[in-house]
Amino acid sequence: MTCDVSDEGQVRTAVTDVKRRFGAAEVLAHNAVGGGWGSFREIDPKMLKGNFEVNVMGLLYLAREVAPDMIDRGKGAILVTGNTSSIRGKANFAGFAPTKAAQRILAESIARDMGPLGVHVSYVLIDAVIDTPRMRARMTDRPDEFFIKPAAIADELYHLYGQDRSAWSFLTELRPFRENW
Amino acid sequence: MTCDVSDEGQVRTAVTDVKRRFGAAEVLAHNAVGGGWGSFREIDPKMLKGNFEVNVMGLLYLAREVAPDMIDRGKGAILVTGNTSSIRGKANFAGFAPTKAAQRILAESIARDMGPLGVHVSYVLIDAVIDTPRMRARMTDRPDEFFIKPAAIADELYHLYGQDRSAWSFLTELRPFRENW
Amino acid sequence: MTCDVSDEGQVRTAVTDVKRRFGAAEVLAHNAVGGGWGSFREIDPKMLKGNFEVNVMGLLYLAREVAPDMIDRGKGAILVTGNTSSIRGKANFAGFAPTKAAQRILAESIARDMGPLGVHVSYVLIDAVIDTPRMRARMTDRPDEFFIKPAAIADELYHLYGQDRSAWSFLTELRPFRENW
Amino acid sequence: MTCDVSDEGQVRTAVTDVKRRFGAAEVLAHNAVGGGWGSFREIDPKMLKGNFEVNVMGLLYLAREVAPDMIDRGKGAILVTGNTSSIRGKANFAGFAPTKAAQRILAESIARDMGPLGVHVSYVLIDAVIDTPRMRARMTDRPDEFFIKPAAIADELYHLYGQDRSAWSFLTELRPFRENW
Repeated sequence: MTCDVSDEGQVRTAVTDVKRRFGAAEVLAHNAVGGGWGSFREIDPKMLKGNFEVNVMGLLYLAREVAPDMIDRGKGAILVTGNTSSIRGKANFAGFAPTKAAQRILAESIARDMGPLGVHVSYVLIDAVIDTPRMRARMTDRPDEFFIKPAAIADELYHLYGQDRSAWSFLTELRPFRENW
Repeated sequence: MTCDVSDEGQVRTAVTDVKRRFGAAEVLAHNAVGGGWGSFREIDPKMLKGNFEVNVMGLLYLAREVAPDMIDRGKGAILVTGNTSSIRGKANFAGFAPTKAAQRILAESIARDMGPLGVHVSYVLIDAVIDTPRMRARMTDRPDEFFIKPAAIADELYHLYGQDRSAWSFLTELRPFRENW
Repeated sequence: MTCDVSDEGQVRTAVTDVKRRFGAAEVLAHNAVGGGWGSFREIDPKMLKGNFEVNVMGLLYLAREVAPDMIDRGKGAILVTGNTSSIRGKANFAGFAPTKAAQRILAESIARDMGPLGVHVSYVLIDAVIDTPRMRARMTDRPDEFFIKPAAIADELYHLYGQDRSAWSFLTELRPFRENW
Repeated sequence: MTCDVSDEGQVRTAVTDVKRRFGAAEVLAHNAVGGGWGSFREIDPKMLKGNFEVNVMGLLYLAREVAPDMIDRGKGAILVTGNTSSIRGKANFAGFAPTKAAQRILAESIARDMGPLGVHVSYVLIDAVIDTPRMRARMTDRPDEFFIKPAAIADELYHLYGQDRSAWSFLTELRPFRENW
């Protein structure tokens, strides 16, 4: 099932569809991302706006759709994957970093609202390049150890989903052991 | 001269007008702000989007218009006023805090691009209620000391404008002496 | 086996003893803590110094003793438990918060040195009161949900120990779902 | 007048002396610093302890001596100069960064105690090498623009001393315009 997360109507349809076929969602993982490079002088302003639609409005639409059922059951998890841009604005990330920072702060706002209602919201800050075929093709000179494994990210999300509610993480960071940070 | 900072065309016209009448801008102060309250479940998503347009896209449009002349002269200042929402997402600020965080990170990205070119970019984090007639009318029970004086904020912006370029501040915070933080 | 972690000689003896009886340590968990309350005007300066000895020098002594064997094997974990004082200095924590901030930054420095050598260093920021008999006795009016369970903290340390080395956390935060943060 | 700031008795004598000769201090600037390089495996633990004595205990002793008179008058300023190590622990700064983080958090704790009493406490984070003869001799290949000017730091401290009390800065950062951050 696919949808454009920046379109409130499509998000609603997709979530309704999921619910009809599988029951109400217990977990929402938001890892859809809009990105791009360039300084504030180089980018097309539309890029910043478009990334905001996907990264931030998308989280808002998705969270609003799944929240009522999670609140009704007093449990559920909303897990958002971010990166270092969410805490730092490098010159070349003018069209992207602001949207990741906004996404992190929106997740924090949702977490503070939903936590006391039994719903766990986490933001996973991934400080690495993910080991996908597309990134491997771009960075053929990098050793295996340079990349973060998608399965390891999934393990972390699964761990967050299972944390005892007396000890929830909001912000978690992940990076490969060799990373220079 | 007034303009809607969320409209690229209006920003261009206003900046061109200023330049024609007074010469190229030496300082840009972005303190236009779109705000509003409510949790992510309560707000109209359009509010978040609208605040992004004013607070973030507005900064992008303004900075793009004034940057070329500042770069040509190798000097100038872009000063942005923010607040605590730029570093923290409280539950009731879901439609606002994400946009201030995005604004701070965009300012940081601009600062890193423009600094080496001689243009000083600062973000002033105001951790207080500003002493304006509108806020006084809303908070009649608060003593004078509760508020931050607009003239004191202006003094700080003027100070930042005049800092020696061997010692520039990007982030500065301001709060009243009695503030509980 | 007990020792005073602020005494380098005792730390050396204890670690040597552990190694002789059980083999070289695979995991070091530093949760010994020296604390106390009071503003900078109220505390006895010796308290700040004493807490530094336990919280910071203790970590340094322990890490130095276990590091060589961990480096030899190219694996191991050094896990340090901290709290919100490590990122914030409230007025009444003048004799404590500085030492937790120092501990966090020392852990970060150790993490950057040891990560590339295969040794995982984590700092777990516990933003809650731990559910121990001593704290329960002090806070008899608080509901169960107010406290973080020691077993949940242990689960998190065990999880960190087992993280895939392509996706290590340095900083992790834990708080109860009802916590107001 | 000189004293070893890590010695409570010497600090007391020096402050008493100053008071006798010039009147009670209106401003305290703590920029004495103990430093040194090395990873946690390389340093002599005594170095970390010694730097803590100068950087943190020194601030505590000094602040305790000048605080009573400042509180009596309901005004005064305690200004502390720090650096990037106060927020980040690089591998090679194991004997230094923890003490600067502790110093920043102690200053924050003092600020929260003294602010409501009319005394302004600031921490100036200097993200640069200071232009002193000693540093110039070590870094002969660096251009003038690489360094931060001592006079510019002094100007900032003077500015902080004069800020209107409705708009005080606690944390301020300073870096040269060309700095890559």
